[in-house]
Amino acid sequence: MVREFRTIALIGKYQSQDVAQAVLGIANFLTQRGLTVWLDEATARTTALENQFTVCDFEDIGAGADLAVVLGGDGTMLLTARRLASYGVPLVGVNQGRLGFLTDISRDAATERLGAMLDGAYLEERRSLLEAEVLQDNRPIFRTLAMNDVVVNKGEIGRMIEFDVCINGEFVYTQRSDGMIVSTPTGSTAYALSANGPILHPGVAGIALVPLCPHNLTARPVTLSDDSQIEMVVRPPHDARVHFDGQEHVNLRGGDRVRVVRSDQHVTLLHPEGYSYFAMLREKLHWSASPRHL
Amino acid sequence: MVREFRTIALIGKYQSQDVAQAVLGIANFLTQRGLTVWLDEATARTTALENQFTVCDFEDIGAGADLAVVLGGDGTMLLTARRLASYGVPLVGVNQGRLGFLTDISRDAATERLGAMLDGAYLEERRSLLEAEVLQDNRPIFRTLAMNDVVVNKGEIGRMIEFDVCINGEFVYTQRSDGMIVSTPTGSTAYALSANGPILHPGVAGIALVPLCPHNLTARPVTLSDDSQIEMVVRPPHDARVHFDGQEHVNLRGGDRVRVVRSDQHVTLLHPEGYSYFAMLREKLHWSASPRHL
Amino acid sequence: MVREFRTIALIGKYQSQDVAQAVLGIANFLTQRGLTVWLDEATARTTALENQFTVCDFEDIGAGADLAVVLGGDGTMLLTARRLASYGVPLVGVNQGRLGFLTDISRDAATERLGAMLDGAYLEERRSLLEAEVLQDNRPIFRTLAMNDVVVNKGEIGRMIEFDVCINGEFVYTQRSDGMIVSTPTGSTAYALSANGPILHPGVAGIALVPLCPHNLTARPVTLSDDSQIEMVVRPPHDARVHFDGQEHVNLRGGDRVRVVRSDQHVTLLHPEGYSYFAMLREKLHWSASPRHL
Amino acid sequence: MVREFRTIALIGKYQSQDVAQAVLGIANFLTQRGLTVWLDEATARTTALENQFTVCDFEDIGAGADLAVVLGGDGTMLLTARRLASYGVPLVGVNQGRLGFLTDISRDAATERLGAMLDGAYLEERRSLLEAEVLQDNRPIFRTLAMNDVVVNKGEIGRMIEFDVCINGEFVYTQRSDGMIVSTPTGSTAYALSANGPILHPGVAGIALVPLCPHNLTARPVTLSDDSQIEMVVRPPHDARVHFDGQEHVNLRGGDRVRVVRSDQHVTLLHPEGYSYFAMLREKLHWSASPRHL
Repeated sequence: MVREFRTIALIGKYQSQDVAQAVLGIANFLTQRGLTVWLDEATARTTALENQFTVCDFEDIGAGADLAVVLGGDGTMLLTARRLASYGVPLVGVNQGRLGFLTDISRDAATERLGAMLDGAYLEERRSLLEAEVLQDNRPIFRTLAMNDVVVNKGEIGRMIEFDVCINGEFVYTQRSDGMIVSTPTGSTAYALSANGPILHPGVAGIALVPLCPHNLTARPVTLSDDSQIEMVVRPPHDARVHFDGQEHVNLRGGDRVRVVRSDQHVTLLHPEGYSYFAMLREKLHWSASPRHL
Repeated sequence: MVREFRTIALIGKYQSQDVAQAVLGIANFLTQRGLTVWLDEATARTTALENQFTVCDFEDIGAGADLAVVLGGDGTMLLTARRLASYGVPLVGVNQGRLGFLTDISRDAATERLGAMLDGAYLEERRSLLEAEVLQDNRPIFRTLAMNDVVVNKGEIGRMIEFDVCINGEFVYTQRSDGMIVSTPTGSTAYALSANGPILHPGVAGIALVPLCPHNLTARPVTLSDDSQIEMVVRPPHDARVHFDGQEHVNLRGGDRVRVVRSDQHVTLLHPEGYSYFAMLREKLHWSASPRHL
Repeated sequence: MVREFRTIALIGKYQSQDVAQAVLGIANFLTQRGLTVWLDEATARTTALENQFTVCDFEDIGAGADLAVVLGGDGTMLLTARRLASYGVPLVGVNQGRLGFLTDISRDAATERLGAMLDGAYLEERRSLLEAEVLQDNRPIFRTLAMNDVVVNKGEIGRMIEFDVCINGEFVYTQRSDGMIVSTPTGSTAYALSANGPILHPGVAGIALVPLCPHNLTARPVTLSDDSQIEMVVRPPHDARVHFDGQEHVNLRGGDRVRVVRSDQHVTLLHPEGYSYFAMLREKLHWSASPRHL
Repeated sequence: MVREFRTIALIGKYQSQDVAQAVLGIANFLTQRGLTVWLDEATARTTALENQFTVCDFEDIGAGADLAVVLGGDGTMLLTARRLASYGVPLVGVNQGRLGFLTDISRDAATERLGAMLDGAYLEERRSLLEAEVLQDNRPIFRTLAMNDVVVNKGEIGRMIEFDVCINGEFVYTQRSDGMIVSTPTGSTAYALSANGPILHPGVAGIALVPLCPHNLTARPVTLSDDSQIEMVVRPPHDARVHFDGQEHVNLRGGDRVRVVRSDQHVTLLHPEGYSYFAMLREKLHWSASPRHL
């Protein structure tokens, strides 16, 4: 199936003046190709382009756009992906000068690459999402999606926490640590990587559990199949906090439970032809294409 | 489907006098239950039970046994699994006093547990295998199966090696290191764990690549989906060696290529009812079931 | 030089009823030996032994006690060490059932071991301390000692921070991470170990810098000689927090500077004869004295 | 004390034609300054400059040279340092295009930098050496020096080994692993770093023990003070091999003992003015001088 692109939404980095120029350039380019250009409200406001283009909220974009072009860094991609997840609008990421794990088109080459993609020269890729729920006294008090990770962490006090980990309803262990990262393959190259977690290729149907500074030295990262249900229950009197993609958080008290499963929804990324996940990793992680001699 | 168990093969640790007593005990127990007991040739020789039980080679066992009971450690399980892989005979592991990752029945409880299992009280689990091929001048010179891992390592000289890594035909990077572990989920708790690799739950359809002392500090473990083809090509003038489950090896010269894919075959493990992968990990890795206070 | 022990201070775990019995037992034992027993104020209050023994503040203890016996865990030892550091009173640690890194006498054997030590059968060991200073606009706003570590960490918001690291006045790098542990050899088996830091034998004149989840994968732990001055300057707009032995903390704003040097003061620990640092590590870390066969 | 430089030895990378040009350039430069230039035998042969300059063996160089200029990589520096250790001749390293940990002058800037250094603009630094001894049946069969590391490793068979570790005559633990690196601060940025060892600043009077793929996950790197004696005793039936700076090795049988102490000798390195250890690390390890924004 080749997609048809008629209406393109542009979403810029939050409150970044820097992207205004790029947004305008791409918007004009798309308009000249006879396409309809929409801006989301925050981008329109930041770039002061409200009067030149149609301004929409994310609901409108979800319902009517054929493609969302995201200008910014990986954080802007995550935010957009979480907001549009239920609508299935595919995303393209344009970085602001430095290659991102998710934003693989450079600003300078943006119109050229987008032009080719609109002509059908693109690769389509599915990324999984996590669905997380916070339960207090067994009642859900919060629910959200995460594209990278759900992180149970130390609370405001900043002390080591203690929590039970259960997988598919089975108790696994009690962990004393700074917290635990529950990560998608997409998130495995983000915070989880800093915490010594494994890289999961996006094609792996897995979820990684990566402990943060565990008191027990044998509490190593564990990868589960992505149909697993993961629960973490904070032990009193510890207080903790759970973060979603580093963008939202909920404070937790002893007894509170964070439940994580793979979402039924997913994110569709479009890449320019020639995109390679490994080439991206090689550049981001300074892997050598040819050996460097001592 | 409940399996029917009529003919049971007993396979003991290679050249271990220690297991003779256990083999005899289990053999008598099975005979008393009216079952047919077969011993593999090496076990029969080591235990001096050639005259009391039918002695078979692995081909016979593969063709005719309904179950193979393995007495020894994880190494004996690996060896048996590789030999019987093409026949589909399910395996049960009886350890010699210390819980193994694969041998989960203790010798003391062996007859009791086996009795219950023969009555149908068992859990069945599939473990994936790797199929590895060594190519010289593009011609295959060796092929085998591995249940834990395929390890490209320093050769006899013991010097750091250099090799290209390709995944699904795409060049990924050149690595300078002591070598690379290509591991199944089963192998992820063996050598790969010592090399700082991630634990993969057996339910993950993944293959882990774990570098051994890589010169480049960002050469981190990567998990791929298990339909990936992995190739490692030794760069001249380095000489290397590839190990299969630590039980067989082939010397490699510059230009030689090791190709690894998931095998079409798999291993069926039977566990006693109540078996839990996480409970086993908890015991093996000293994870705390309840917190230990400082 | 053999020390003379006449006045012994007893210091119990803060607000722990559990240690009352042990405090009383040891106090009686010491009194029967003709020694003077002092209790610190908090211990006297918690144990309700105010009327049976002399109650002192830490200043009195520092000025007049020949030995301080600490009953509790490593946390109680740290607290006492920091308070008594300027006085040079040697410390003995009695644990509450589980061997500590610093509290090496078990409660059950306490009077027997203390008896022998009072007779001269002890080993004396010096542990270094860190002196930390927080500077705002180049003016010191806080100063304290730490026996384990000084930890610059994420602030209340819980987001990754960014700070410059300078050693002996030379800029080393800018780090983006969850923070940095500056650790003594004593602290190297505490939080720093969970963060993948190296173990430093107490005999090493070194200070370890251990990054917490650094964004840059090559930001590895670095050990410096203990005459180094370490400074960490928080970059705006990040807010951070610095913790001292996990017992005190100060909030930091962008531009604030944490300066750490080895203190001129040190802690003197007394151990029972036969004490071995490595034997303690072996037990705490489950190192094998004799090999375990698979 | 300012050194006087009259006789300069040039030592090139072993059998490398590439360095011939650089050797000739530097030799001519030094001759023009009125200095005496010596070539070691291998360098003279490789560069075919035997007839233009005085050719010496290392004994002559040790006895008569005021400075040795090493052209090559870190390996050439190690080799030269070990050979000249007993003579105290200071070393300068000129790399062949890529900054080394020990060879900090680039080939292009070599004459300019050396000129300034000969005028007195240099920093002098001491690096410690290890003295290693192999004992069989308690009799020494081999003795050598190492500037980076002494590595007990798997033997020819390539199987995990088992050995006892003793420090200052005290048994510490039995380790099952691929081996153990005993490293100087200089070696801490070489093989030990790949094995997850800590970086030790050259100013730390320490020796690092870094296990290679230890079977026990809590067998973490340990740093000892550099007056420690380290012994590793191979347990039968394992066979092992010990490597010295990766340049020499000795095969070990069960019962053989490797004893390591800091040598009484040391290496003197001269650096150009402005040299900074941390600046070198920052470049080699890609540490960020200013933050990189996602």
